[in-house]
Amino acid sequence: MNKFMYALTAALCFGAISANAQVKEDFVPSPNNQSGKQYPMVNSERRVRVKINAPDAKSVKLDIGSKKYDLVKGEDGQWTGTSDPQDEGFHYYQINIDGADVPDPSTMYYYGCSRWGSGIDVPAADQDFYQLKDVPQGEIREIYYWSDYNKAMRHCYVYTPAGYDIDKDKRYPVLYLQHGGGESEHGWAQQGKTGIILDNLIAEGKALPFIVVMDNGTWMSFKRADGSSLAMGPRRPGQGGGMNLPEDWTEGFRNTLIQDIVPMIDNRFRTIADKDHRALAGLSMGAMETKEIGLRRPDVFGSLGIFSGGTISAEEAAAAPGFMKNNNLTFVSYGSREIEGGRQGGDPKQITDGLAATGCNAHYYVSDQTAHEWQSWRRSLYQFAQLLWK
Amino acid sequence: MNKFMYALTAALCFGAISANAQVKEDFVPSPNNQSGKQYPMVNSERRVRVKINAPDAKSVKLDIGSKKYDLVKGEDGQWTGTSDPQDEGFHYYQINIDGADVPDPSTMYYYGCSRWGSGIDVPAADQDFYQLKDVPQGEIREIYYWSDYNKAMRHCYVYTPAGYDIDKDKRYPVLYLQHGGGESEHGWAQQGKTGIILDNLIAEGKALPFIVVMDNGTWMSFKRADGSSLAMGPRRPGQGGGMNLPEDWTEGFRNTLIQDIVPMIDNRFRTIADKDHRALAGLSMGAMETKEIGLRRPDVFGSLGIFSGGTISAEEAAAAPGFMKNNNLTFVSYGSREIEGGRQGGDPKQITDGLAATGCNAHYYVSDQTAHEWQSWRRSLYQFAQLLWK
Repeated sequence: MNKFMYALTAALCFGAISANAQVKEDFVPSPNNQSGKQYPMVNSERRVRVKINAPDAKSVKLDIGSKKYDLVKGEDGQWTGTSDPQDEGFHYYQINIDGADVPDPSTMYYYGCSRWGSGIDVPAADQDFYQLKDVPQGEIREIYYWSDYNKAMRHCYVYTPAGYDIDKDKRYPVLYLQHGGGESEHGWAQQGKTGIILDNLIAEGKALPFIVVMDNGTWMSFKRADGSSLAMGPRRPGQGGGMNLPEDWTEGFRNTLIQDIVPMIDNRFRTIADKDHRALAGLSMGAMETKEIGLRRPDVFGSLGIFSGGTISAEEAAAAPGFMKNNNLTFVSYGSREIEGGRQGGDPKQITDGLAATGCNAHYYVSDQTAHEWQSWRRSLYQFAQLLWK
Repeated sequence: MNKFMYALTAALCFGAISANAQVKEDFVPSPNNQSGKQYPMVNSERRVRVKINAPDAKSVKLDIGSKKYDLVKGEDGQWTGTSDPQDEGFHYYQINIDGADVPDPSTMYYYGCSRWGSGIDVPAADQDFYQLKDVPQGEIREIYYWSDYNKAMRHCYVYTPAGYDIDKDKRYPVLYLQHGGGESEHGWAQQGKTGIILDNLIAEGKALPFIVVMDNGTWMSFKRADGSSLAMGPRRPGQGGGMNLPEDWTEGFRNTLIQDIVPMIDNRFRTIADKDHRALAGLSMGAMETKEIGLRRPDVFGSLGIFSGGTISAEEAAAAPGFMKNNNLTFVSYGSREIEGGRQGGDPKQITDGLAATGCNAHYYVSDQTAHEWQSWRRSLYQFAQLLWK
């Protein structure tokens, strides 16, 4: 193929990706690229462009946002292609080479979709809140600990705010912050940008300093107290946002959290070890866990953050022993694209407002123009952190 | 291809990998696999077996230990193949699919060979010293900090030993521990297993507790003090283990380390901030940096660890102002396969013994049956840590 033909083919292909769309050629390297890598790139229209060296391949595709885009091979053996505009924020993606789903070898890797794979951050109008800045810096600490409930060593991340090691007598509240299904304790520490979001908020005086614990809450990986498997248990149809979940599906994670993780953290860190200074929050599956555990144990977790995974109704709150007396804050959020056209079980804003009307300190937030994805959850953390412990 | 033909082809192929070798079928999943993944596997002969789904590919290869192995396609579209026996310990590797070099989608990822890519740990007779155990656990802390020399935020990991947050007045010595070329600050924190090695050594009373700082020392990424680029400078032929390096190639990293990193650490952590309680060590490129910086600034770093990157002769020590007076420990190590057949510039054991003969506390260690690879460096850290601050 000569250069003219290649340019023509490429133009036709890129043009064909989004009908009648002229792609704006202002692409810049993604911030998630490995050191020195030019591709993948993003442009101001929030399109993703990848470039992969696969000289002998018959077919190479970009798989992002539940859509596969055929790439076009250049004379140099490099395959290139451009996606439709993506939502602002972080997206998992992969490359398919002759039928093999693999990470793009040019990006850093993130755990999601039950795999370590490629990620890309599309510029966002409000991205300043999760940009690394020269403000007083906290730390994210990697810790292994013994879990007696699981009879195994486990792994978590703990964010400590700036100054934790300076004033050695000061004690802090703690937020337990959970990931979604197919994710892990790495999610909030990496693509969630928890450390940067909190460092910036605390530096601006918008949030009080607190500790954040990020552990793995994959419910089916835990056993029940009687030793039986949660993964194998009978499922109830249609529970928990349409998912079929077993009866009391949070039992294993809840026992691990309350019997092992919370005491380990209270022992190891200078916490204020009471329910008024302990919050539980999560996204998607982690939000559903927050609701289930929060309703059962308001004596342990006084504040709740439910991101993209349900809400708590006035009726549920009233039926949960001790909830109305103990709960200090219930924060509910969704990405705007998640609630377009309504949701099964009713409008979450209306339900949350109903809870607030009973005297509960309940808040509702919608992330504009985002879906069930990390930009919704970064924004939810940003909002929730400003309400906590106040 | 029917099942008989497939079995025959596979048998021929696996058999052909290592002439006349019968592969022992006791493969188990690699400890570096992503959660739930069965492949890659390793067997008791230290062979690596991979399995990749690539139904439409023409050719798939396993690229490990500087050798490419053709994989064989099964009826299910999965490609499988087995390597020759590898050295004990950790190895980087990749998969080649129709000409595309990509990570194996089943492993966790490690930074080396100037990329994030696949890694595999081959069982080792002495692996107990880097196995996670239920002993008092330190932490590995992720920190961003402002570097005035580089006018940029930088990233490092800091290991703090178990009990750091309990006795809040105790102060600790500090080891600055450097990676090799094409690696980064992630190396010692991940595949180096620094935290586990030190937790185990300290728990057994074999090492005194100390802090370890792991930062990025990629020399060509730094500028000289006058603002000029180190990457672009003229190279001297044959310096530094055969590499062509510019004059005073450690200038940028050395200034960053001494002007920014050491004061940041001494400010942020409860260190004993003097040269008698400060060590510098590294592997390969990091070893060469340790030698260069250690000879120039014995007033800053009283102990040195040089792993697979040279040694210090009696003549070099005598010519370095203040070295003989200030140096408390010089540790030199190699993998046994690195020194087979001798080395340019002389036998490192003989040279190190020569340094010891002048009264310097110099030690020499050889890692048995390993090459220029992480098993040599894990063992070197294990040995070096037991000599430090004693």
